[in-house]
Amino acid sequence: MKDVRVLRLGHRPERDQRVTTHVGLTARALGARGMYLAGRDAGIVAGIRDVVSRWGGDFFVEDGVPWKKCIREWKASGGVVVHLTMYGEPVQERVADIRENDRILVVVGAEKVPGEIYLLADYNIAVTNQPHSEVAGLAVFLDRLFEGRELAWEFPGARIRVVPSPRGKRCEEI
Amino acid sequence: MKDVRVLRLGHRPERDQRVTTHVGLTARALGARGMYLAGRDAGIVAGIRDVVSRWGGDFFVEDGVPWKKCIREWKASGGVVVHLTMYGEPVQERVADIRENDRILVVVGAEKVPGEIYLLADYNIAVTNQPHSEVAGLAVFLDRLFEGRELAWEFPGARIRVVPSPRGKRCEEI
Repeated sequence: MKDVRVLRLGHRPERDQRVTTHVGLTARALGARGMYLAGRDAGIVAGIRDVVSRWGGDFFVEDGVPWKKCIREWKASGGVVVHLTMYGEPVQERVADIRENDRILVVVGAEKVPGEIYLLADYNIAVTNQPHSEVAGLAVFLDRLFEGRELAWEFPGARIRVVPSPRGKRCEEI
Repeated sequence: MKDVRVLRLGHRPERDQRVTTHVGLTARALGARGMYLAGRDAGIVAGIRDVVSRWGGDFFVEDGVPWKKCIREWKASGGVVVHLTMYGEPVQERVADIRENDRILVVVGAEKVPGEIYLLADYNIAVTNQPHSEVAGLAVFLDRLFEGRELAWEFPGARIRVVPSPRGKRCEEI
C-alpha cells in the first residue's frame, strides 16, 4: 500500500476555503493518507475531520505546516515529491515512473506558488498544459497513480455509508 | 468526436464563484464542448471566455440557462444525461455503456440539487460514494469517458501555449 500525502500550498483563509476543502476531501476519497496545509485554517481542519469521523478511514489533516521543512523531511526520509502544475510534463508520460515509489508527496498550489517549488520537486507534472483546477489535477493524478483501484477502496470505521443507486439517494447507518 | 457538455446546477453567485469556475475550466481542459450555467453570473462567463480567447479552442459558456428545459431539449434531440452524484452507481461499472453515446450532458450540482434530477437523468454516476468535490468527480468522469485521449488534445487558435518542462515555467506566444 503506497503512502501518498498531499501538501497544499498558498492557501488564503478567506478566498480559498472551499477549494482547499475540495482538495482535502478529494485526496481522502481517492486514496491519499492525509493533507498538510501550509497556513492555518481551523475551519478546514474541523470540516475534514468531521467527514472522516462520519465516513470512515484514517485520513489526517494538519494545518500550520512549514512547507519547506515538510518537503525537506519527506525527501530526507526517502520519499519523492510531485508538484502538480500546468507547466509540467504530461502525467500520462511520467506516472509509470512515479508509481515505482512507495512514498509520494503531492504538492498542490493555489494560484501563485513560490518559484522554488519547481526546483525542490522531483517531478513537475501537468494534467494537460491548460489552466483549470488543482482539484481536477489532483483527482486525475491520483486516479492514474492508483490505476483506478482506489475507486473501490473502503473506509473502515464509517458511521454512514452510501448504498449506490441508479435513482435517488440511499444511505445506511452502520 | 463526441459532443459532451456540462450543465452546472445550484450555483450561488457569491459562494460558488471559484468552484463553478473550476468546473468550467476543467470541462474545457478535459474535452467538453461547453458549459450551461443554471443561474446568472457574468463574472464567471467573462472569466472563462477570457481563458478561451487566450488558450484556444471553442469552448462555450452560457449562463441563465433554465435547467429543466435544457435537459428536456437535450433528451428530445437524442442525447443522454449523466448526473454525477456520490449516491450513484460506480463510474467504473457504467462508463463503458455511457461511452456508446455520442451526445452526453453531464450534470454537476453544488451542495444541494433538486431531487427531480435523480429521475430526469439517464444515469446517476458516482466517482466513489464518498463526499468530495464536483470538480474532482467531473475530472475523473471525463478522463475515463475519453479514455485519457483528451489529455493530448490541442486547442486551435491559442495565443499562448505552455512548453512542458521538468523544471520551471515556460510559455510561448503564438
